[in-house]
Amino acid sequence: MSHDADTASLIWSRAMALYAEDRTCQSLGIVVSDIASGWARLQMRVDETMLNMHGTVHGGYLFLLADAAFAYAANTHGPVAVAQSAQAVFLRPALSGDLLVAEAEERTRVGLNGIYDVTVRRPEDETVVAEFRGHSVLLPGKPGAAG
Amino acid sequence: MSHDADTASLIWSRAMALYAEDRTCQSLGIVVSDIASGWARLQMRVDETMLNMHGTVHGGYLFLLADAAFAYAANTHGPVAVAQSAQAVFLRPALSGDLLVAEAEERTRVGLNGIYDVTVRRPEDETVVAEFRGHSVLLPGKPGAAG
Amino acid sequence: MSHDADTASLIWSRAMALYAEDRTCQSLGIVVSDIASGWARLQMRVDETMLNMHGTVHGGYLFLLADAAFAYAANTHGPVAVAQSAQAVFLRPALSGDLLVAEAEERTRVGLNGIYDVTVRRPEDETVVAEFRGHSVLLPGKPGAAG
Amino acid sequence: MSHDADTASLIWSRAMALYAEDRTCQSLGIVVSDIASGWARLQMRVDETMLNMHGTVHGGYLFLLADAAFAYAANTHGPVAVAQSAQAVFLRPALSGDLLVAEAEERTRVGLNGIYDVTVRRPEDETVVAEFRGHSVLLPGKPGAAG
Repeated sequence: MSHDADTASLIWSRAMALYAEDRTCQSLGIVVSDIASGWARLQMRVDETMLNMHGTVHGGYLFLLADAAFAYAANTHGPVAVAQSAQAVFLRPALSGDLLVAEAEERTRVGLNGIYDVTVRRPEDETVVAEFRGHSVLLPGKPGAAG
Repeated sequence: MSHDADTASLIWSRAMALYAEDRTCQSLGIVVSDIASGWARLQMRVDETMLNMHGTVHGGYLFLLADAAFAYAANTHGPVAVAQSAQAVFLRPALSGDLLVAEAEERTRVGLNGIYDVTVRRPEDETVVAEFRGHSVLLPGKPGAAG
Repeated sequence: MSHDADTASLIWSRAMALYAEDRTCQSLGIVVSDIASGWARLQMRVDETMLNMHGTVHGGYLFLLADAAFAYAANTHGPVAVAQSAQAVFLRPALSGDLLVAEAEERTRVGLNGIYDVTVRRPEDETVVAEFRGHSVLLPGKPGAAG
Repeated sequence: MSHDADTASLIWSRAMALYAEDRTCQSLGIVVSDIASGWARLQMRVDETMLNMHGTVHGGYLFLLADAAFAYAANTHGPVAVAQSAQAVFLRPALSGDLLVAEAEERTRVGLNGIYDVTVRRPEDETVVAEFRGHSVLLPGKPGAAG
């Protein structure tokens, strides 16, 4: 295999080792559909148990999906990265039955700190549902599950 | 009944009408344990399906609980309030089996905008797990479920 | 002197030692009007050089005043605390000539992390101009200027 | 002139009309070095009056520079856009004498809402000093200075 293919394969195996422990993503049917260094795309199908008091998808689940994409992107480098803080802006409502896709992209890394931007979209009509920014820190001395 | 008792009763009936529609809180066992004007306390028992890739409670669920408390507090005034943005800082890990309590308090309201601060605590040892701030907007012309 | 008076005096002397180095506050006429453990009140008189393209006070100066109050509150404990991140919501415009007061209050401290909430008010009519939340970290091993 | 050159020229003339009112940028020597639709680059030379209690550039000035870049980018479309909220992460200290460059880029626009990401860099060594995200709203019915 080429060097690039080796790297891609290592990143996938790390992500899958993390996914094997990730009860939240498993139980909600959140799937890692693509992953690369500092980048991840996850998807989730919304169901009726995810609706809020106004009948639209609960902001907590929109955040959770974005946060999960952030976690997979931030943990592609090897050492364990955990979320320190995050912020979400809710731009459009999502509805029961919607397929949502969250794409997380590394914006910057400085020392132990990383910043990741995540956009949550409804691919059906390509509209943006939410924008998220997460701030991660590496736990020094803690290698990742597959690191 | 006194005027205060009337108001308390109205706030409770509004909250319960919203809760009746709130599939997220119902399905996760999130309970509104106390509510007053601009203020709400909710609780959730963490289970194993809420764990992340590191074996602690997923930040998405910590956010969701805080966001739910924010929504109930912001909707105590009558008109429909929706979350526009929110930010969370994760301070300590929570574990499977933990009971978590989120207390939301109105910080300020200006025109259609409101800001609510939510602290997520583990009452067993009174430690703070997360701090959350939410920014709501009222939807003009939309009375709340029980408004 | 009583113990409380000793502590108050120590906090004031620390703050003044920091102020002596603080070229920003000095040059903008920002004054520390009151200070206590984890808490500070600062004030600034807005002038015409602080207006933005719309003729109201630049959000940057509203943030700066809040950030300064946050810094003094976070540095009342002795060790050097620095801002890691902060967020501001702009609720009402301020105008040239306004006196603005920023009150910073410690919300929580966990390990090296602290969260401080700052409200910027116009005392003349007691309206809230901006709400700010700052996240600080202590630099271990670095005693404060007067620590 | 080509259509593109017309648009570029219109965007520049709008920005300069706004700059003519912008006492903050003028008085701090902040310059708009480049601008395009939804995008702006501004620069500022740090001087000693911008230092904080720790002898590094005050976070308030880093925020202000980013906020200014955000404002110019958000006002390239014609209608008046104002900042509703913003968040900054401080990644590295900047020092007196540093030239700082802030690049603002539109991330998304939905209805009256816009989200802009700003990176503050020190071009001398290409390091990132701060990351900023601003949330703007259009004021309906208010044409921009040159709109």
